[in-house]
Amino acid sequence: MNEFELIARLTRALPANASVVTGAGDDCAVLDVGAPDRLLLFKTDAVVEGIHYPAGTPPEKIGHKALGRCLSDIAAMAGTPIAALITLGLPRQFDAAFVEAIYAGMSALARRHGVAIVGGETTTNPERLLISVAMVGFAPRGKVLLRSGAKPGDAICVTGELGGSLAGRHLDFEPRLAEARWLADHFSVHAMIDLSDGLAGDLRHLLKASGVGAELLKSAVPISRAAKEIERGCARKRAADSETVQPPAHIGSHKPAFVAALTDGEDFELLFTVPGKAAVPLLDAWKKQFPKLRLSCIGKITGGAGVIIRDKSGVQPLTAHGYVHFA
Amino acid sequence: MNEFELIARLTRALPANASVVTGAGDDCAVLDVGAPDRLLLFKTDAVVEGIHYPAGTPPEKIGHKALGRCLSDIAAMAGTPIAALITLGLPRQFDAAFVEAIYAGMSALARRHGVAIVGGETTTNPERLLISVAMVGFAPRGKVLLRSGAKPGDAICVTGELGGSLAGRHLDFEPRLAEARWLADHFSVHAMIDLSDGLAGDLRHLLKASGVGAELLKSAVPISRAAKEIERGCARKRAADSETVQPPAHIGSHKPAFVAALTDGEDFELLFTVPGKAAVPLLDAWKKQFPKLRLSCIGKITGGAGVIIRDKSGVQPLTAHGYVHFA
Repeated sequence: MNEFELIARLTRALPANASVVTGAGDDCAVLDVGAPDRLLLFKTDAVVEGIHYPAGTPPEKIGHKALGRCLSDIAAMAGTPIAALITLGLPRQFDAAFVEAIYAGMSALARRHGVAIVGGETTTNPERLLISVAMVGFAPRGKVLLRSGAKPGDAICVTGELGGSLAGRHLDFEPRLAEARWLADHFSVHAMIDLSDGLAGDLRHLLKASGVGAELLKSAVPISRAAKEIERGCARKRAADSETVQPPAHIGSHKPAFVAALTDGEDFELLFTVPGKAAVPLLDAWKKQFPKLRLSCIGKITGGAGVIIRDKSGVQPLTAHGYVHFA
Repeated sequence: MNEFELIARLTRALPANASVVTGAGDDCAVLDVGAPDRLLLFKTDAVVEGIHYPAGTPPEKIGHKALGRCLSDIAAMAGTPIAALITLGLPRQFDAAFVEAIYAGMSALARRHGVAIVGGETTTNPERLLISVAMVGFAPRGKVLLRSGAKPGDAICVTGELGGSLAGRHLDFEPRLAEARWLADHFSVHAMIDLSDGLAGDLRHLLKASGVGAELLKSAVPISRAAKEIERGCARKRAADSETVQPPAHIGSHKPAFVAALTDGEDFELLFTVPGKAAVPLLDAWKKQFPKLRLSCIGKITGGAGVIIRDKSGVQPLTAHGYVHFA
């Protein structure tokens, strides 16, 4: 049983109440807590030594990643983060300066995005460090962006460049909070998700939630320099430093850069859809607003099911999956 | 460095913002999220296999304890829980039925208290199961009970009976949510905390936050049957089943029952103070409202510092500490 199959079993019949607007199954839970103009976003995410980062990673970067993952999920709902709680599972012998440096990494990122760290908990996790971050944020009522709103004819857009994140970016990515709020404020975004499992996997999540299919244009998918270097074998040395990190185990194996962009995961970019006719005005406005961050329209939503990829030789169904954590 | 020293270092200069009413240092963080009549309570708590429960514990009870600990912290603020997120750190080989039974234990408790479970996350924690629960709740504006309001002359009260929890109660305690809300609605409760580290430790937390001292009457401290049985050695066999649980390692060692009541921890009862003149009316009203649950007034708040214990031979300072998780 993989992660997604287990989650499907666990979330079949969860207790609910009148506060739940959106429960399990989106980037954040959405709750009505009585604020007239806002809904509450609620999210948790964990990083584990040797799973999400290799031993030897600078502690500031571990902290950055732990908090950044939650922030990226708040961004995926076009939300504004409010506050975080930090749960530290510490090995029996821990170095207080190391833990303080983790907090320094989290605090620097939190300050940049106006997020308070309001406490948390320490416990013993004897064999390895585990950091679980819980976060609350808000989104204006009526402006929460879910995975489920994509419609046939929508353009599919993605920020940044994809693939090869484990060569370094997964430890210092900047969550796309300002970009997501700008999108929600200025365009009719139908559906949004952040890219954590890889374009192939996360696009499938969005399509499944929306009950639609997609056609991607291969040449339009933005591929990171890291993914291209890995394809050429240049990144083999650097990747070897990351070898205790499991997903993906194939880094440094001359994986084609396009496959890396589809499946590597941990890009922490935004994937979203807008009505097809909004694509060109969006690309123009984006260039003025965020001149340093690439935005690509990579395909369109279809009425079918699944994903097909179009290149110069024709179309083929997408068979590569986003990596599955337990696979 | 123990748990409390580390936390003190980590929480010295955390990022804050305008939403923070109470940050690190109370049972829950308190946030203003724009609801006119309410404040948000925010809490995380984790249980780890072999630390908070022994291998072989029925999975429903593990789930009950994981969720119940957070609920007890919401109770400590006289709050109403809204929703929880569950982070599961799973060993590489996990039994899906076991994990489902953990969820069943959490769900049963959640339903009894009207709490929604709105998702969470699964990750790999290769050597042992770890469950981190994040919870949001609310309390009416102006009625959040903090640790910091105790005043000299207050009566110190405690629900239930203390000590010996690891003989079984730590796995099936009922969080005192209804009792705490009734207290806040009907009496001028000055300060409240839930008993997780033990009466001695948690009373010190309350006193430190309030800048006061306390005098306890030894004969008034309610001692559980389990603590008395352990003193007599009757519980040695049962305790042996729990020997992989660390705090307290001395269970089954003929520990005096009064010391157990002070230091065992995991009682998950409420400790609170009310003005001295309210003590008798409170005890009377309590008996009618909660006839099955004992309420004891065990001493009074003083203008001094620290805790002294009065018995028939006189007074002595309290030297026993609540257990310290990393000690």
